[in-house]
Amino acid sequence: MARGITGEWSGGGGGWGVVVHGGAGDLAPERRPSHEEGCRAASRAAAEILAAGGPALDAVQAAVEVLEDDSRFNAGTGASLDEGGELRLDAAIMEGTRLALGAVASLPAFRHPIAVAREVLRDGRHVLYAAEGGALFAESRGFVRADPASMITDAARRKLAETLAGGSGNWAGGTVGAVARDAHGCVAAATSTGGIVGKRRGRVGDSPVPGAGTYADDATGAVSGTGEGEAFLRAALAARICHWLEGDPPLVAARKAIALLDARTGGAGGVIVVARDGSLALARNTATMAWAAAWHGGHGDSGW
Amino acid sequence: MARGITGEWSGGGGGWGVVVHGGAGDLAPERRPSHEEGCRAASRAAAEILAAGGPALDAVQAAVEVLEDDSRFNAGTGASLDEGGELRLDAAIMEGTRLALGAVASLPAFRHPIAVAREVLRDGRHVLYAAEGGALFAESRGFVRADPASMITDAARRKLAETLAGGSGNWAGGTVGAVARDAHGCVAAATSTGGIVGKRRGRVGDSPVPGAGTYADDATGAVSGTGEGEAFLRAALAARICHWLEGDPPLVAARKAIALLDARTGGAGGVIVVARDGSLALARNTATMAWAAAWHGGHGDSGW
Repeated sequence: MARGITGEWSGGGGGWGVVVHGGAGDLAPERRPSHEEGCRAASRAAAEILAAGGPALDAVQAAVEVLEDDSRFNAGTGASLDEGGELRLDAAIMEGTRLALGAVASLPAFRHPIAVAREVLRDGRHVLYAAEGGALFAESRGFVRADPASMITDAARRKLAETLAGGSGNWAGGTVGAVARDAHGCVAAATSTGGIVGKRRGRVGDSPVPGAGTYADDATGAVSGTGEGEAFLRAALAARICHWLEGDPPLVAARKAIALLDARTGGAGGVIVVARDGSLALARNTATMAWAAAWHGGHGDSGW
Repeated sequence: MARGITGEWSGGGGGWGVVVHGGAGDLAPERRPSHEEGCRAASRAAAEILAAGGPALDAVQAAVEVLEDDSRFNAGTGASLDEGGELRLDAAIMEGTRLALGAVASLPAFRHPIAVAREVLRDGRHVLYAAEGGALFAESRGFVRADPASMITDAARRKLAETLAGGSGNWAGGTVGAVARDAHGCVAAATSTGGIVGKRRGRVGDSPVPGAGTYADDATGAVSGTGEGEAFLRAALAARICHWLEGDPPLVAARKAIALLDARTGGAGGVIVVARDGSLALARNTATMAWAAAWHGGHGDSGW
C-alpha cells in the first residue's frame, strides 16, 4: 500500500513565485514532454502577471484558464466524463489575505469553471455552489453555458468507454492547479478538474473543497492538490499542509502530506505548495505529475 | 466586529462521551428550554449506544436523527427553505479510525439526510454527492424521497417570507450536530442542516464539508460546527481545531477556533469538540447555542 515519495522539487523564495500542476497520475512516456510544455505555458501566463506586480489571485486564475483551454488536461475542454457521459466540473479559487473563496462543484459545461468560481468569490454572498445552482448563478452573471460537444474530446469519450468496460473507475489524472505568492506577500490557489472518469452523477471531489484540494492563507501559504479526491477529502489535506507551514518549509510540509495520505487513506496524489515567503515545493507518490514553476530572480523550472 | 467568546463549557474525559448541539444563533428566551430539552433527548440516544459499548459512529448518527425528526431544529423536518421555497439539505458523518466519510450537499427532501450520508460512507466509492446526484444515490440504496410538504413547517415558511421581505439572508440557526468518543477510543462527528434561510439554489455550507463544519480523526478528536457556513468554509475551521488538539485540550482548541473565526472572517458561530481522551468542550460567539452532553461516570449537562 505505502508508496513513498516518488517525486519532489523545491525552489524560489524571497519574492513572487508560482507553481502549476497538470495532474498526478501515470502519463505514458511519450506524453510527458507535451504535458510539461502545457504547464510551462500556464506558468508563463501567471509569471507575467506576478512580474508586473499583479495579484496572486489573478495569476492563479490565468494559469488555470490556460490549462482549462488545453484539451490535454482534465479540466474545462478535454475534461473527464461522468458515468452518463456528461461534463460535471469542479473548481475553486482562494486568496489568503481575506480568506476569500469561490467554488463550484459538479457544474455543467462552462468553458472556464475557474472564472465562474472567481465570480462566486467576487460576489461574496455564498462561497460554494453545487450542480444546477452553480449554473444558474453563472448565467445570472453573464456566463454562457457551453455546448458540451465543443468541450468533450474523443480522448475523453474513449477513456470513459474503457473505464465503463473495465469497471476500473480510477481517477483520470490531469486535474490542473496553481499556487502563487505575489510581490505584495499575498498567496492564492486555484484548482479545476473534471474529476474521476465514470464518476457517479453528483460526485464531488477535493478540488472545489477548501481545506481538501485547495487552500490559501497569507499566514502560512497556499496549496493545490491532485489525485484521488476521496482520499484528499478524508485527510483534509490542504488544511493540514497550511498548518504544517507554520513551522516547516514547504517541501517538508508537502512530504508530510503525501506520507499522511499514504498512511491514513492509502491514497495516491501530489501537491504543490507556496509558503508565505514565496518558496515553492511539490511532492507526489504517483508515477508522474507534470508541473512548471517560475519565480522572482530565477530562470524557472519544470518537469513531470 | 470582534465578538469575543460569549459561552463555553467543558467536561467529561477518560471514557466514552458525547456532546450534541442544536445550532448557534439568537434564540428567543422562551424557546431556550425547549431547544435544550431537544438536545438532551438526542444526547440520551447517543449515550445509550455508547454506554453499551457501541460505536461512536452509530451514536452520532442516532443523536442527529433525533434532531432531524424534531421540527424545532433546522435539519430534516423543520429545516430552512431556500429562496425558491424548497428544502436543500446538507449533512456529513465521519469516523476517525479510517477517516471514513460520507456526505450529501444540497440534497432534496429525504427524512434523514444523515442516514443517506451514512450510506455514502458505507458504500465507500465516493464520499460527497451534490444535489440530484445525492438523491439518485439514495434511491439506488432504497431510500425514498419524502413528500416535501411533510417536512416543511409553517415556521419555516414564515421565516422564509420574513427573510425575502427583509432581505436579511442571515443564517437560520438551528443546525444540528454531534461528536462522540466511544469506549474503544474511536471518535466520530455528524452534522445536518437546512442551511441559511433564503439561500440561493445550490448553495453549500460548511456542514457537509470535511474540515469545515465536520471532522473526525482518532489521532486528535472530532468537531461539529454551527453558524455562518461561509465563514467556517473559508477558515477550514474543523481541520484547524483537530490540528490544535494535538497540543491543546478541547476547550482551548474551541476558544482558538472562535477567536480565529472572529479575527479572520468576522463570522459568528459555535463548535462542539471531543478529544481523543473523551474530554468534551464547546465555545461560541453567538447569543445562544442549545447543547447537551453525557459521559462515562458523569451525570450529564446541558444548556443554551
